[in-house]
Amino acid sequence: MKAIVFDKELKLDNNYPKPVPQKGEALIRVTLAGICNTDYEITKGYMGYVGILGHEFVGVVEDVNDEDKSLIGKRVVAEISYGCNDPNCEWCAKKNYRHCPNRHTLGIWRKDGCFAEYMTMPTNVLFEIPDNVPDEQAVFVEPLAAACEITEQLHIEPTQKVLVLGDGKLGLTTALTLHAQNFDVLLVGKHQNKLDIAAAQGVKTQLLSSFTQEKIYDVVVEATGTASGFETSMALTKPRGTLVLKSTVASGKELNLAPIVIDEITVLGSRCGQFGPAIRLLENNRIDFKPFISKTYPIDQALEAFEANKSKESVKILISIL
Amino acid sequence: MKAIVFDKELKLDNNYPKPVPQKGEALIRVTLAGICNTDYEITKGYMGYVGILGHEFVGVVEDVNDEDKSLIGKRVVAEISYGCNDPNCEWCAKKNYRHCPNRHTLGIWRKDGCFAEYMTMPTNVLFEIPDNVPDEQAVFVEPLAAACEITEQLHIEPTQKVLVLGDGKLGLTTALTLHAQNFDVLLVGKHQNKLDIAAAQGVKTQLLSSFTQEKIYDVVVEATGTASGFETSMALTKPRGTLVLKSTVASGKELNLAPIVIDEITVLGSRCGQFGPAIRLLENNRIDFKPFISKTYPIDQALEAFEANKSKESVKILISIL
Repeated sequence: MKAIVFDKELKLDNNYPKPVPQKGEALIRVTLAGICNTDYEITKGYMGYVGILGHEFVGVVEDVNDEDKSLIGKRVVAEISYGCNDPNCEWCAKKNYRHCPNRHTLGIWRKDGCFAEYMTMPTNVLFEIPDNVPDEQAVFVEPLAAACEITEQLHIEPTQKVLVLGDGKLGLTTALTLHAQNFDVLLVGKHQNKLDIAAAQGVKTQLLSSFTQEKIYDVVVEATGTASGFETSMALTKPRGTLVLKSTVASGKELNLAPIVIDEITVLGSRCGQFGPAIRLLENNRIDFKPFISKTYPIDQALEAFEANKSKESVKILISIL
Repeated sequence: MKAIVFDKELKLDNNYPKPVPQKGEALIRVTLAGICNTDYEITKGYMGYVGILGHEFVGVVEDVNDEDKSLIGKRVVAEISYGCNDPNCEWCAKKNYRHCPNRHTLGIWRKDGCFAEYMTMPTNVLFEIPDNVPDEQAVFVEPLAAACEITEQLHIEPTQKVLVLGDGKLGLTTALTLHAQNFDVLLVGKHQNKLDIAAAQGVKTQLLSSFTQEKIYDVVVEATGTASGFETSMALTKPRGTLVLKSTVASGKELNLAPIVIDEITVLGSRCGQFGPAIRLLENNRIDFKPFISKTYPIDQALEAFEANKSKESVKILISIL
């Protein structure tokens, strides 16, 4: 089968072996997939991963290696981590597989990803997509779930002021998701064309160049992935407020953490999320991801797709695998 | 009067003007004071402060500029920050003066400190010391309150595992305070003689050199004030756990914050605390600070006292002002 593989370099492999579902796994025919910045980081060495890339997708179940075959023919997405399911694993017991110390993570850690014609995943991390949610929306469930994770971790009061810093796909998704939950959100970024995507769906936005920095925000979501963005976020978070750190990109930079102590700020690391709330937002038409799609490439042009993803002009690049 | 002043350099001034209490303030004759590492940081330029140093003390009220003179003759300590008391100030309304944007902070920010024969503070931040608590314990109320702040900010469950990293006075005070509240605390540090102070009062301790690093602690308190201590703390905090950051010292270092996101760690900045719970611990003899006292210097030898504070062998250096 066709697959986009990273092994020292990124390549399209036209003869990658089609996976065989293990006990409890489904075989999924991938229809549409999305490039995440984590994929790009992996091509620079993040996690030391080797294998098929990709963890954002929608597909159709073709087979199930289990007695219960009811998922066959269903359109599904998958939470990206699955755990050991050892009865003594506290994380698996809570279905919080992303923290299981023996986890596998799709296209990131010990598990071939979704940029391929076929993939497998355990059925217990699959979610059926409602009929009224087209593939072009469903392919965003994974990053949308990551944005939903913020309110799973943190009680934001409805009267609090929330600021999202950064207008890339992470910042846009986060701002739209919090707005969809009726929070008082301001999105600040550097790109008018990206801010306009959120503004068109009702989010208050402001260009960084005309934004007056004030230490008045109860919750600040750092979505720039840069050290300077982290420092700006600290400066905007009011005393005793929360700075949500969503990006793993900023690293190895010189940082002065004293403001965290002086202002008693909480820095909340936030990663993947549960899929249920994300699918519910799409089912109820609360967010439209179509304007995110900069271009959809066929899998044969995957390398061009990765190049396009690097452009600051791009928001989301999709890969079509039909 | 005698005062220890920092103005580009540290000096003992024998003719500093005796302060005059403003409306609502008490005039306090200082009897005993403690050197904090923040004082040392100020002598290196922290906060750009100029004036009398010192914020840890116990003293006796000699006068009050107010109708209510009932505090005269009482032995007192003082919370180190006082606010604007503007009716619109949310922080002053909550008596959380340390976050008032127009605050004054004793010996740190816009307010002469306690390393002097006399000082003034507003009566609304003074706390009377119970008769059974001697000066040698009462002088520790301020750092003890800072340790009590952790449980004001964070709900630690009694079955959770707590690790305190660093066996300086901050780490020792924190470990003893959490132990006094019946938490399951392990103190890890580099100095057997300092660990022994906590061990003698029942705290489990371990030398860093023989300590096996495991990612199993629900709460890790970073009390080393170093970038490497912060990174070790991240490595010890279990997924979804809390890293309490108590020290403002670590700054301008290269740090990789990715573990915060991957493990969804909460980093909780924690500074000063309310004095009531701290005084209650002393009143009930839950912690003995006498073993902390490395040496007590008369104010005339204040410069020697500051030198002694720099030694890794010292725990607490006091200044006697009688």
